[in-house]
Amino acid sequence: MTKVQIYDTTLRDGSQGEGISFSIEDKLRIVQELDNMGIHYVEGGYAGSNPKDKEFFERVQELHLINVKLTAFGSTRRAGKQVSEDQNLHQLLKAGTNVATIVGKSWDFHVTDVLRASLPENLAMIEESVRFLVDNGKEVIFDAEHFFDGYKSDPVYALETLEAAVKGGASCIVLCDTNGGTMPMETKKICESVINKIKIPIGIHAHDDSGMAVANSIIAIQSGAIQVHGTFNGYGERCGNANLCTIIPNLKLKLGIDCISDENISNLTTTSRLISELANLPHDGSQPYVGRSAFAHKAGLHADAMQKNPHTYEHVNPELVGNERRILVSDQAGKSSLLTKLLKDHPELKKDSSELQTISNMLKETEKDGYQYEGAEGSFELKVHRIMKTHDKSFDFKGFTVLVERTENHQMRSQATIKLMDLDGNIEYQAAEGNGPVNALNIALKKALLAFFPQLNSVHLTDFKVRVLDAKSGTAAKVRVLIESSDGEQIWGTVGVSEDIIEASWEALVDSIEYKLYKDQH
Amino acid sequence: MTKVQIYDTTLRDGSQGEGISFSIEDKLRIVQELDNMGIHYVEGGYAGSNPKDKEFFERVQELHLINVKLTAFGSTRRAGKQVSEDQNLHQLLKAGTNVATIVGKSWDFHVTDVLRASLPENLAMIEESVRFLVDNGKEVIFDAEHFFDGYKSDPVYALETLEAAVKGGASCIVLCDTNGGTMPMETKKICESVINKIKIPIGIHAHDDSGMAVANSIIAIQSGAIQVHGTFNGYGERCGNANLCTIIPNLKLKLGIDCISDENISNLTTTSRLISELANLPHDGSQPYVGRSAFAHKAGLHADAMQKNPHTYEHVNPELVGNERRILVSDQAGKSSLLTKLLKDHPELKKDSSELQTISNMLKETEKDGYQYEGAEGSFELKVHRIMKTHDKSFDFKGFTVLVERTENHQMRSQATIKLMDLDGNIEYQAAEGNGPVNALNIALKKALLAFFPQLNSVHLTDFKVRVLDAKSGTAAKVRVLIESSDGEQIWGTVGVSEDIIEASWEALVDSIEYKLYKDQH
Repeated sequence: MTKVQIYDTTLRDGSQGEGISFSIEDKLRIVQELDNMGIHYVEGGYAGSNPKDKEFFERVQELHLINVKLTAFGSTRRAGKQVSEDQNLHQLLKAGTNVATIVGKSWDFHVTDVLRASLPENLAMIEESVRFLVDNGKEVIFDAEHFFDGYKSDPVYALETLEAAVKGGASCIVLCDTNGGTMPMETKKICESVINKIKIPIGIHAHDDSGMAVANSIIAIQSGAIQVHGTFNGYGERCGNANLCTIIPNLKLKLGIDCISDENISNLTTTSRLISELANLPHDGSQPYVGRSAFAHKAGLHADAMQKNPHTYEHVNPELVGNERRILVSDQAGKSSLLTKLLKDHPELKKDSSELQTISNMLKETEKDGYQYEGAEGSFELKVHRIMKTHDKSFDFKGFTVLVERTENHQMRSQATIKLMDLDGNIEYQAAEGNGPVNALNIALKKALLAFFPQLNSVHLTDFKVRVLDAKSGTAAKVRVLIESSDGEQIWGTVGVSEDIIEASWEALVDSIEYKLYKDQH
Repeated sequence: MTKVQIYDTTLRDGSQGEGISFSIEDKLRIVQELDNMGIHYVEGGYAGSNPKDKEFFERVQELHLINVKLTAFGSTRRAGKQVSEDQNLHQLLKAGTNVATIVGKSWDFHVTDVLRASLPENLAMIEESVRFLVDNGKEVIFDAEHFFDGYKSDPVYALETLEAAVKGGASCIVLCDTNGGTMPMETKKICESVINKIKIPIGIHAHDDSGMAVANSIIAIQSGAIQVHGTFNGYGERCGNANLCTIIPNLKLKLGIDCISDENISNLTTTSRLISELANLPHDGSQPYVGRSAFAHKAGLHADAMQKNPHTYEHVNPELVGNERRILVSDQAGKSSLLTKLLKDHPELKKDSSELQTISNMLKETEKDGYQYEGAEGSFELKVHRIMKTHDKSFDFKGFTVLVERTENHQMRSQATIKLMDLDGNIEYQAAEGNGPVNALNIALKKALLAFFPQLNSVHLTDFKVRVLDAKSGTAAKVRVLIESSDGEQIWGTVGVSEDIIEASWEALVDSIEYKLYKDQH
């Protein structure tokens, strides 16, 4: 197996993604996790460009990194200046890393139109900047910016920029598809041509503007590159960088190209999700290998075959990357996948039980009405228990009112009253104010039920979603409310559907309480 | 330019994505939009597998489609049965489409271990099923399920399954990477080999489990395939299907391969976002070509270079796909683009007007509070007019109440009262019942105002959307309500934000009426 080096730039290029802003603590935590994963290089940030990165490079020296070589990022010297006087290059020395990564121009058009320098001056800038860092004891990685566009514009000059970096003493040259516009077969052709001519290690740094960042990275490696740059979860400016969470298992599990150990790759899903937590972005459920849906099966046909042999509809075993298989319930699910899902709680069910048909019909009918049970398994299980007669309601609601008022001085006031009866016929009547009508109703409901079920005290809502189902009907449209509740130990979801948002919320709230009471009894 | 056929399966394979459940109205709307886009084939759903798809195939016949050939999806006959007795094949005839797409097995292991049929029986199933549909007047597209895995397992048998479909009379054979595990260079090799041997048109159907769906699709076309299957926004089971929003511009703008017209491709961004609205999924901002961040650039030197020549940091012109360049900017540059936007209605504004600063502050503050003016320009314009003192309110609300009640026999009742004063000090009190609290409020509002402004009679709501902004706060979460109104001539959008959904709806409703009155005065 060829060994490929993984170079992570989540903390530098990744942090340019819209809405991403890591704290210094976040960055230190990520470096530690990447070290645990056995990642070879981690680009920590711009050397000295801002106080946060400066503090990061100081504090990161306190970590005891075992696998990671930390690098600081900067660019070649300015046109017409001496390297020895270039502030940016001095900052790179001060960052205290053993490795420095510098970016230089490989596209003639950028040299003349953006830098407004001569083509030979740009070559001197590259060679002198690399040599300055090497002479000061650094391992230097050279990022050839816009290399593919440059090569298409003027292949001779583009190669000269690489040769300048080689002459300066760079240890690796990275071909950057900075605008992300290169197609895979072009990548192949250009990489093969470069690797033929440049005799030091070559890397690939791809962006996803054409949806090709992963493909271009893999194809560059198949063409002879030995270092791959990317970010966790594909974070990065515009459409993002090449996603290491996809590249690593593609290399190792698909192409048999070694990069990190089997044990480390089994932490890929956890690390991916942790980094999305630290970035404060929802984790992309459809992300290859590590997404929550990556091994979720919905269609009846598939789910049925999955039971016979997971290999039928899974390209790799989810456990290898630390992920898991999930079977989803929907109106497309066949009876046999429905049965599998139900057997855990209802082992007496058979494929020809009349209850199974009733449950399957209920599923189809309610989904047509706008119900959806993905994320609302609590409501689904309660409906099944009603059909199976395996759970009785714990209380009986007699009614409620909600009053919302806007006063002449523009204050809002919401109150709810509730009337319910327990199974012994005791009536409880309660009222509450709240932050909006659904909140008032929820508080009143909890107050009324706590008299009967003190264990409800631990239940609180952790998520609340509203979807208008037929927006064209305007304010008379049907809405679906999905709520997620927790008792500190478990999390469950419930759903309600109505043309009245209060009623839909009520239904989901009542299911949530019922589900908690059911769980506690079983 | 070679012409490639675009085959959309958003409504069938796409709807298997987790959390996606299109209503029949959503599906009809999507078919119409895809027809407007000039898409060649649209797979509407499974023929007769559930009541929703059945109703869809009935109602879709009312649309007057110009470009789209609609197809119904099913599978080959069951093992050991006669085609003439196969319910599934009869359902395909009943769907009433000119084209039928059927899936059959190309992977020997699936035939023996999932179907539990013999290898020759599977070939007969394919040939006979295709022929049955062809004999009944259908154009038949054959989806060779797991073709790539099958080819790797037994290339001779995999090719025999294709030849069976050719013998049956299929007009196109689609190579499916059903598990999404194939790497691009394998795709190339296998497609070239197949296209060499099979002399009818070949298509590609790729899944994204290895992050390669777009690359595999493009490479298949470069290897000679002429039909590409995919979904809008890449929706689909697990990691999704090949994303047509990426494939179409890659084909047309990058490779010069014709598929849809220049005019139609300029609607790509709008259509992509509309479909995500109908799926009720947030639109992925980092999606190539159509994402909100796809052409977003940082300020400073980078933005400066962009202004000299956008080609420096853009792989294509965003206008070609109906997207726009965004410069994520400093205050100064922000104001200048804001000024451009405002000059149309307020030609007196200058770059240093104090009102411009106030408007810029208002924008920042309200967006921080959760307001969003894309699709709610009505509310934005009203806020600007208030600051510019170019429009006075037409009435003054003194307050409202909303009462929602659920009676002991589980009936819901919603009523609203409203008190308002016109500019002469006349008070109007009104009450109404409605289908839910917001509907009751809307009816009462209209009743109260019609006394003063009879022209409001023509105003009705055409869209109503609710988004929970901080779902973690449960029922006390802030919500954003977006409504769209029409007076039969124009359409405008308004927005409201509050922790109280009634107040947020109220705010959007009042803005809608105010905006109509403002429009009529100017």
